[in-house]
Amino acid sequence: MSALGNPWSQDQDKMNSFLTLTTDFGQGDFDAGVLAGVIWSIAPAAQIADLSHEIERHNVLEAALLLERCTPYFPAGTIHVVVVDPGVGTQRRAIAARLGAQRYVCPDNGIITLVRQRALSANQPVELVHLNQPRYWLPNVSHIFHGRDVFAAAAGHLAAGIPLAELGERIDDAVLLEFLAPERTPQGWRGAVVHVDAFGNLSTNLSVSELQGAVVRTVNIGDAQITGLARTFGDKKPGELTALFDSSEKLCISVVNGSAAARLGSRVGEAVEVALE
Amino acid sequence: MSALGNPWSQDQDKMNSFLTLTTDFGQGDFDAGVLAGVIWSIAPAAQIADLSHEIERHNVLEAALLLERCTPYFPAGTIHVVVVDPGVGTQRRAIAARLGAQRYVCPDNGIITLVRQRALSANQPVELVHLNQPRYWLPNVSHIFHGRDVFAAAAGHLAAGIPLAELGERIDDAVLLEFLAPERTPQGWRGAVVHVDAFGNLSTNLSVSELQGAVVRTVNIGDAQITGLARTFGDKKPGELTALFDSSEKLCISVVNGSAAARLGSRVGEAVEVALE
Amino acid sequence: MSALGNPWSQDQDKMNSFLTLTTDFGQGDFDAGVLAGVIWSIAPAAQIADLSHEIERHNVLEAALLLERCTPYFPAGTIHVVVVDPGVGTQRRAIAARLGAQRYVCPDNGIITLVRQRALSANQPVELVHLNQPRYWLPNVSHIFHGRDVFAAAAGHLAAGIPLAELGERIDDAVLLEFLAPERTPQGWRGAVVHVDAFGNLSTNLSVSELQGAVVRTVNIGDAQITGLARTFGDKKPGELTALFDSSEKLCISVVNGSAAARLGSRVGEAVEVALE
Repeated sequence: MSALGNPWSQDQDKMNSFLTLTTDFGQGDFDAGVLAGVIWSIAPAAQIADLSHEIERHNVLEAALLLERCTPYFPAGTIHVVVVDPGVGTQRRAIAARLGAQRYVCPDNGIITLVRQRALSANQPVELVHLNQPRYWLPNVSHIFHGRDVFAAAAGHLAAGIPLAELGERIDDAVLLEFLAPERTPQGWRGAVVHVDAFGNLSTNLSVSELQGAVVRTVNIGDAQITGLARTFGDKKPGELTALFDSSEKLCISVVNGSAAARLGSRVGEAVEVALE
Repeated sequence: MSALGNPWSQDQDKMNSFLTLTTDFGQGDFDAGVLAGVIWSIAPAAQIADLSHEIERHNVLEAALLLERCTPYFPAGTIHVVVVDPGVGTQRRAIAARLGAQRYVCPDNGIITLVRQRALSANQPVELVHLNQPRYWLPNVSHIFHGRDVFAAAAGHLAAGIPLAELGERIDDAVLLEFLAPERTPQGWRGAVVHVDAFGNLSTNLSVSELQGAVVRTVNIGDAQITGLARTFGDKKPGELTALFDSSEKLCISVVNGSAAARLGSRVGEAVEVALE
Repeated sequence: MSALGNPWSQDQDKMNSFLTLTTDFGQGDFDAGVLAGVIWSIAPAAQIADLSHEIERHNVLEAALLLERCTPYFPAGTIHVVVVDPGVGTQRRAIAARLGAQRYVCPDNGIITLVRQRALSANQPVELVHLNQPRYWLPNVSHIFHGRDVFAAAAGHLAAGIPLAELGERIDDAVLLEFLAPERTPQGWRGAVVHVDAFGNLSTNLSVSELQGAVVRTVNIGDAQITGLARTFGDKKPGELTALFDSSEKLCISVVNGSAAARLGSRVGEAVEVALE
């Protein structure tokens, strides 16, 4: 099930093939654009959207967080191609997966950790294959651009109706990232900043589910202390440091109309302490 | 009527659903990409283009100018989703509109000021509704991301054929921006810089219609004086400061193959004086 | 023939109209987005992808290299619109072309040099026309934005099925760029850096074909010397300076998980010396 309540529908899947592209290429790069060419050459009806080409270079964790946050909002059957690939040219595998209602094509480096975990938690389908069938790659595979020659090609074949199981051998040992889980403390919870967005908002790994029912007395990060949680930015004055649940239901530290990252000098990994009443 | 002379056609509208996205999220942000997912989930045939995700943060005026400049070039019935929303989480309304041949979904903060004015001036349809029907939003509305949960969802329903009037209650009191109108002076006109593009060209609010028939003697901005108007960049030498009418028929100050903004240190709001012969 | 082995197919061409957009507008600019509006207004079924909007301003050579690198991966018949146009407003011509299996619409300033050369070398079709038929432009042509009013409009008509020959008069004298060709030296070859990508990798004009069969002893650039060629990034340690053939089969100088451009202070045009055993 998606955030929209859509079930997986084989029919819808056949009529429209949706794909998204996520890379760490940066906007100025030549190579993001070519992925659409490869996909359309194999699946002419594919509709393609960019998720982000500004993943920090080789930041697999950031890509994993983006998939967790964004993919539930896409139609069932959407194919998410993710090219954040520090291991290109090594023995790392290329994989494709069906995880819940969404599909993925990416290197086997942990990118799918969070979306796989979500599917497992919800008793949804989890199928992964090793892309080891060269007939679903481009004829000439570069040693250094599998995004084009392996991932986009395999995604095109998926979009054109080739079943996942034909793309390669089923695997159960995909590489997974280890995440710092939030911990209980005598006063409440200790978590960490896991993402800083373009506005300087700090997302943490503390979610509504951990804090449900409890009343937050203070949130501490670095030298700063915030009293209580706001319901929305409208509850605070511009420039004020605020803690609230963001649009992904994660505890988020923000400055209204400003940048919490700049104000606090915070980065991914910084500890966040929550004290409950 | 559009810049292309296309009338509104209900048939064309049914066969193709065009949407554009404009935000102040920046390219590095996760959240622009998710808008396409929400729209496709509701209107699978939607064709979606980005107008810009680089609107200056919370700059409603810049978004209003972009809509005025770009939307006439889209097919009749195109739906323009604009998420520049400093008031998210406050009591500001979400709105949708049909203004002339184009449709809009955005916060009620003045974004539609110029396209509404243009439709009124041309005696074209002007219909605005308050998006107060939760059945056309996503099931769970975040307090801080109405772009996804309200605007993209409502735009998807419009694209899928839901009439504007069903999305909410008709309103006549949309928030409008006050623009500095150009003023007559003893020597000619006084206007202002209203946009600086990526090349450093300075667009003003003085248009062909004000200056029509008159011969421009000089254009003054800051300490610089330009004599006469060029017809095109080809009339001037690289590096030369030039005034001419730009592709939107506005008086524009440019440096051939350079940046007028960098040369003059100019910003939005700076006064521009035109003396006529 | 494309990199994918697709022949030109008139049928496929009629069912799907693929277009790509390449400009030097930068992401913050208003005007890239409007090109899709013009195209869809004329060819509603067009599927449009961005190749890059980050071509260095007025860098025709960079645009020519991008087309050579990317266009073979698009379906036969794809129309590539390129707006890198330092001569807008001068007497430079607007052109459209069929070169091999791909189509192009752009200013006549050398952008098509490399893709034309490739088509000639492969005995594929080479047809160029001067876009001198105003009925295929927008009704009002700005002196300074032919990207919208001439190129996008002509591309829309091509996508809608208008034959190339109707868009204008056939020409044989398109402007071509002169490229620094690699030269033989007593020790091997001298070439140059022709592109620096977003990761700081340095692409050269030395390709597999020049060096085929020979064994590379050293690659010299500036004060640095690299011994031998790597097969892939996986052969070297992070931080190590490496020479290898990139995904376009060009000799490329890279730092594993780093930026060769930053390390060496190199830019486009810098000499690269290859000594053979």
